[in-house]
Amino acid sequence: MSAIPSDFLQKTAKLSETVIEPFPASHKRYSVGSRPDIRVPYREVSQTATQNDSGIVSNPPIPVYDTSGPYTDPEVEIDLLKGLSPLRQAWIDERGDTEQLDGPTSRFGQDRLTDEKTENLRFSHIRPPRRAKAGANVSQMHYARQGIITPEMEYVAIRENNRLQEMRADPRYKALLRQHKGESFGASIPDEITPEFVRDEIARGRAIIPANINHPEIEPMIIGRNFRTKINGNLGNSAVTSGIAEEVEKMVWGIRWGGDTIMDLSTGKHIHETREWILRNSPVPIGTVPLYQALEKVDGKAEDLTWEIYRDTLIEQAEQGVDYFTIHAGVRLAYVPMTAERVTGIVSRGGSIMAKWCLARHEESFLYTHFNEICEIMKAYDVSFSLGDGLRPGCLADANDEAQFAELKTLGELTQIAWKHDVQVMIEGPGHVPLHMIKENMDKELEDCFEAPFYTLGPLVTDIAPAYDHITSGIGAANIGWYGTAMLCYVTPKEHLGLPDKDDVREGVITYKIAAHASDLAKGFPGTQVRDNALSKARFEFRWLDQYHLSLDPERAREYHDATLPKEAHQVAHFCSMCGPHFCSMKITQEVREYADQMGVDEEEALKQGMKEKSIEFVEKGGEVYGRI
Amino acid sequence: MSAIPSDFLQKTAKLSETVIEPFPASHKRYSVGSRPDIRVPYREVSQTATQNDSGIVSNPPIPVYDTSGPYTDPEVEIDLLKGLSPLRQAWIDERGDTEQLDGPTSRFGQDRLTDEKTENLRFSHIRPPRRAKAGANVSQMHYARQGIITPEMEYVAIRENNRLQEMRADPRYKALLRQHKGESFGASIPDEITPEFVRDEIARGRAIIPANINHPEIEPMIIGRNFRTKINGNLGNSAVTSGIAEEVEKMVWGIRWGGDTIMDLSTGKHIHETREWILRNSPVPIGTVPLYQALEKVDGKAEDLTWEIYRDTLIEQAEQGVDYFTIHAGVRLAYVPMTAERVTGIVSRGGSIMAKWCLARHEESFLYTHFNEICEIMKAYDVSFSLGDGLRPGCLADANDEAQFAELKTLGELTQIAWKHDVQVMIEGPGHVPLHMIKENMDKELEDCFEAPFYTLGPLVTDIAPAYDHITSGIGAANIGWYGTAMLCYVTPKEHLGLPDKDDVREGVITYKIAAHASDLAKGFPGTQVRDNALSKARFEFRWLDQYHLSLDPERAREYHDATLPKEAHQVAHFCSMCGPHFCSMKITQEVREYADQMGVDEEEALKQGMKEKSIEFVEKGGEVYGRI
Repeated sequence: MSAIPSDFLQKTAKLSETVIEPFPASHKRYSVGSRPDIRVPYREVSQTATQNDSGIVSNPPIPVYDTSGPYTDPEVEIDLLKGLSPLRQAWIDERGDTEQLDGPTSRFGQDRLTDEKTENLRFSHIRPPRRAKAGANVSQMHYARQGIITPEMEYVAIRENNRLQEMRADPRYKALLRQHKGESFGASIPDEITPEFVRDEIARGRAIIPANINHPEIEPMIIGRNFRTKINGNLGNSAVTSGIAEEVEKMVWGIRWGGDTIMDLSTGKHIHETREWILRNSPVPIGTVPLYQALEKVDGKAEDLTWEIYRDTLIEQAEQGVDYFTIHAGVRLAYVPMTAERVTGIVSRGGSIMAKWCLARHEESFLYTHFNEICEIMKAYDVSFSLGDGLRPGCLADANDEAQFAELKTLGELTQIAWKHDVQVMIEGPGHVPLHMIKENMDKELEDCFEAPFYTLGPLVTDIAPAYDHITSGIGAANIGWYGTAMLCYVTPKEHLGLPDKDDVREGVITYKIAAHASDLAKGFPGTQVRDNALSKARFEFRWLDQYHLSLDPERAREYHDATLPKEAHQVAHFCSMCGPHFCSMKITQEVREYADQMGVDEEEALKQGMKEKSIEFVEKGGEVYGRI
Repeated sequence: MSAIPSDFLQKTAKLSETVIEPFPASHKRYSVGSRPDIRVPYREVSQTATQNDSGIVSNPPIPVYDTSGPYTDPEVEIDLLKGLSPLRQAWIDERGDTEQLDGPTSRFGQDRLTDEKTENLRFSHIRPPRRAKAGANVSQMHYARQGIITPEMEYVAIRENNRLQEMRADPRYKALLRQHKGESFGASIPDEITPEFVRDEIARGRAIIPANINHPEIEPMIIGRNFRTKINGNLGNSAVTSGIAEEVEKMVWGIRWGGDTIMDLSTGKHIHETREWILRNSPVPIGTVPLYQALEKVDGKAEDLTWEIYRDTLIEQAEQGVDYFTIHAGVRLAYVPMTAERVTGIVSRGGSIMAKWCLARHEESFLYTHFNEICEIMKAYDVSFSLGDGLRPGCLADANDEAQFAELKTLGELTQIAWKHDVQVMIEGPGHVPLHMIKENMDKELEDCFEAPFYTLGPLVTDIAPAYDHITSGIGAANIGWYGTAMLCYVTPKEHLGLPDKDDVREGVITYKIAAHASDLAKGFPGTQVRDNALSKARFEFRWLDQYHLSLDPERAREYHDATLPKEAHQVAHFCSMCGPHFCSMKITQEVREYADQMGVDEEEALKQGMKEKSIEFVEKGGEVYGRI
């Protein structure tokens, strides 16, 4: 029985049509692994046939890595009030190393469960949390180091391959599989991702699978430089706007366009309840910055923060199911004065809160001094670290400075502590960095943090374009992804200016999908170019609908085309809208090719000599082809 | 007396308010050179003062390189029917090496001057064209090689410096001039651009000043790797839409946001008249692809093209004042079959037309065989070559292939021929290229084309994002600009899909300004970081209005901010709209800094030791600072 008022229900229970409608010409498919409950989703985009003078040739469907979860599966009934199906539950149970608690063990979690004021907002099916049995470690890294390949590991192996083996075995994909050799700057990308490779990468700390045992709803994914470059989208109801329903919808919207993980940066009164709604409905890992909530618990007074309050917040969120925590444990007391001469000081919220705490108390950061205890919590739920870059540069002038790199070195030191606990770690990175200074960030991270996955915000390559910072940062993101960054945190057009709305989220996610895909192509991840090749072939053959369907944003591609040539007939027009029917280079090229096809090697040789006498023959033979122009 | 009908006049004579309104907090200023008629425009953005506890400190105005021409100068009266003032006329006359003709010498130009059907569209103040006197060469390169520094050269030197010397001499700019050392990959960027440096760069072919003697209205600009990275915007009324009035307005709109040159890619019936309107009203160099118009003259039948028709078109356009011609003279007969196995064949319109001509006739391209005669025309008007990349890759799969690089080598060969004639040259580049294969394009161009300026389209780093190709290409553009490309040809969101409207042009130009600016920062062009530093300082100090005013698109920055926090009071709010009043890291940092300021060296040392006893003192001394949170 729910105490949720009906107007709230109405708002929350129903997602807008636009956020869940299936993609055009697409089918949700599943690759099944070694056991029937390993069902890895992908989106299959069907194509129309090629029609030319030699007849009709079909084009094979193209598999697309799919982050959108069950929302785009017409077979699945979505009920936000119930939450998604806990697909990992059996895997977690089978391992037998966790126990179900009677209820939340955090004080705050207990309080909120019985809080009357928020009862009307509370998710009605709150599961009692699970926790590692005494002495157990339930992290994926721990299993990996025991030599165990978990279902999660097999799942991500299948997901990363994205049907590559099936395509390689199918002659229809031969030409589409053509791909340039990449430049991976010392990465170790294999020709095929095996479950054993995944295990090994996790064991050595070079990749993580963020997968809290209390978030069984996720479709596992992996973050590491030898895998596909991932992107994160941020959500958050600040004090100024937004509410629970919109946040859930924004999450669904963000993963629809390609968000691999979502960070819930909510602040405000209903932060605990918002998070529950998001977690129960999210098929992707959720990250948070627990410090934000801890600060609320002390009414925003940084100097009143204590380890006990922070610790309670970690447990509260771990028991809800948060998959990774941003923890700014590298902002040490000694580094704070290094920022005094900066143009923009400390721009990270978490970093500035901790700096303030350290200065006010003249004490070393409690995140640093209690780091081992934090690890104990992390491994009891398998929460991954995202070690925050509290001293990242907030403008070009401050890039790559002493403060930034001092913190990075400390993050490396903390990484080694976490790894002693078999806790998964990724490292956050900047910020604002000019193009030619980006690589130094990646190189230092690999060295100082022992190849732990790098997770960067942008970087923005100039400061002068507020309202276009998805682009300034997308440029930096594509580059740092190429150099080895494992996950790119998106930036929306509203960065520095305001809160992103739905359009901004879409724009930000697509921009980052572009950056991530460009990185994968550049580092030579196997099979990445299939989609480019298929789309380009469709473009060349004037298969307009296929071109839209294969694109990152089919709706907008079609909408833009139709703005110039709205008629349905133009969807099959053998010219593109830029040049009109008489000036289409694609059309001309097709004709050139048809002619070239008719030529044997000898004729080609003759042509190279430019022999005039051939021209008569050609005009007789193929002249009418050109009459079309 | 004009035969232009009044409704057309009404439409054409008046530009929309939005395209000409002055930028906020900006003044049009002029730097005067060695003679009073060398008046180099720049936009000066004023700033408000910094207010903090230590008092009020004024912030100096920031000079911005200004491409918008007289349209943003409230002192200048704009009359599209008259055209802009011919500011270079005296310079051209003084040189005494040109003569005014009685009228157009091209057959087409003569026909159109007396054509009754287009009389109503004709620009009413057509000047009789000028041409070099018999035997004279009026190219900037020719003067440069004689050791002559023209007013144009001095003008661009002043323009490139953008008040750098004045700022260096003024202590208010000291901190703002702080800039990271760049990585220029062997470029020779001096600490200050002198007129002699400009002359030398032009003499050796490493830079060009596109400046037709029949386009005296331009404010000269320079294109070369040792100068600021430039961007080009394309316009064009295709067969499908648009008209003369809109094209002029689009040109003004494109240069408002930062277009350094404009290519007029018009096709259709009134191409000649459209061009006249654009040239007479354009303060930036105009480029064209004469082949498009030549093809129209043979009713779109490529194989009917002749050297005579093409030649007449070159003269027609040169006498109108076109500043550079894209000429696809590198598409040789022998290279055409190299494209047969490509995924997207030949995607350049010019390239495909020439390929078709070569194949149909089994003859070497007439552009190649008549190249010396083309040079004779170029030097009689000082039209610059933009040697077209007719075989550029149209998709990732075709990048850096045999056809592309064969053509590039030929472009280098043609460059040497042009240079023998003292004709200015730039080289066009791709296209679609994965991130890691971009540098090879730049390296080969520098080598094969002897450092002639590179002028690239993008490149696009993935094929899968139609509707977002300004971004996919902006990523490539920023990189190739960094590597040494001198001018970046913009791509709009409608690329591959349709014709850009005004919003698309703005989006495309701003994206490319970002790419060009990122390149300049990365290659270390002196003074480039001033604007970033000033904007970041404004951002840090919550001077919201200054932040908008210093940005590439002040209107949109403000609009996005106001969407979240619309009230006027928030323009001075000491928190930003993302986080609300309690969570602002900037605010916290300011407090940290105020505290750090109070500390002497000893105290900082003490702080580094983290001595607890200090905390009491601090809370007594500065505790109330933190009470604000």
